[in-house]
Amino acid sequence: MKIDVKQDVFSLNNVIAADNRALFNAKDIFTINIMGSPGAGKTTLLERLIVQICRQVSVAVIEGDLATARDAQRIAAHDVPVIQINTDGGCHLDAEMIAKVVRGFDLDKTDLLLIENVGNLVCPATYDLGEDLRMVVLSITEGEDKPGKYPIAFMEADIVALNKMDLNDYLDIDTNNLIADIVNIKPQIKIFPTSCRNGKIVGMDELAAYIIEAVKTKKQDKILRGQA
Amino acid sequence: MKIDVKQDVFSLNNVIAADNRALFNAKDIFTINIMGSPGAGKTTLLERLIVQICRQVSVAVIEGDLATARDAQRIAAHDVPVIQINTDGGCHLDAEMIAKVVRGFDLDKTDLLLIENVGNLVCPATYDLGEDLRMVVLSITEGEDKPGKYPIAFMEADIVALNKMDLNDYLDIDTNNLIADIVNIKPQIKIFPTSCRNGKIVGMDELAAYIIEAVKTKKQDKILRGQA
Repeated sequence: MKIDVKQDVFSLNNVIAADNRALFNAKDIFTINIMGSPGAGKTTLLERLIVQICRQVSVAVIEGDLATARDAQRIAAHDVPVIQINTDGGCHLDAEMIAKVVRGFDLDKTDLLLIENVGNLVCPATYDLGEDLRMVVLSITEGEDKPGKYPIAFMEADIVALNKMDLNDYLDIDTNNLIADIVNIKPQIKIFPTSCRNGKIVGMDELAAYIIEAVKTKKQDKILRGQA
Repeated sequence: MKIDVKQDVFSLNNVIAADNRALFNAKDIFTINIMGSPGAGKTTLLERLIVQICRQVSVAVIEGDLATARDAQRIAAHDVPVIQINTDGGCHLDAEMIAKVVRGFDLDKTDLLLIENVGNLVCPATYDLGEDLRMVVLSITEGEDKPGKYPIAFMEADIVALNKMDLNDYLDIDTNNLIADIVNIKPQIKIFPTSCRNGKIVGMDELAAYIIEAVKTKKQDKILRGQA
């Protein structure tokens, strides 16, 4: 009985996610769904990423939170269009929430849509939003053993930002064990060790280059398909 | 339609939680439901707590995780009875899961049942397990702004362990702002700044004393009710 309800919810979500994906493809927008525990550093990573790429690609941001507009205010300070979704207690974003707000952006002038999901390493992983790429932000302060204990998020992700590397010297962990635990779940996942703290930036050039390349590749693929 | 389904789930959960509570009261067991983000330090805090209180109260532990028995293995090393629940993707423990396993302990010889919920600052907060006390473990590495963004967990909690205080010198946060954000949600909440790292233990004497007192008070209240 419970399982039936879940399946209904998921299949409805998948229909709307497919609509979102069709819209993003029609408008040539590369979309990233960003998830991770509360306090993994998702918003700070987005802020840093925006600073590094906003001259090369035109960015829009959706912020998901149970409550407050704190994250949207931080993003808006970087002069980037941002929409805050408050789930009012809900534990994840779903495709319908995205569909309802996304036309609030000027989609013809958007290259990259960054969607920061609710801080939660469990529920967001099972909801497709129509994104092209899924990124988990995992703070090394969470310990070595999290990937195996929360496997679905990593199974469904394309890349991982292993964040807060600036704190590595102060923790009793070996990041090699952490990386091995991730790779054990999904061998082909791409891992970027990062730190986004002022004065201690690590790995953001590599992550920014990877994302800019992905945005360009999507546009080129469409041109090639149009010529074929 | 969606809301109806949710209400059904919650009211069924509340019925079973009331049964659990009746069982715990009949057996004189004080029960704590422990929640927090992945990597907040819940298991390490439980390990340290067990070391400090196991000579005064008899402890049993339920560990909730999506997958693996990693946490139960860590608890078992302290010679305490422990049961691991794997939710197989589920984002929280519910009262039925507890009811199904709890008779696996010798309840007549248990004073304190510690239930470590799935690492998730959202979903566990809305499921009563039949506990006497609810504790949120919040790592200061998660940043100052989390309570306001995840208010339900704090609204529903009795005490907060503000954990990983040993890392305070290495972070760009002011724990006074963090505490103010918690108190703003629930003024009467009790906050214990803690660190459970070997060689850097903070605040665990206070937390242990508080819990031992709560266990004793429950037993005394029952005796007093019996005499009245």
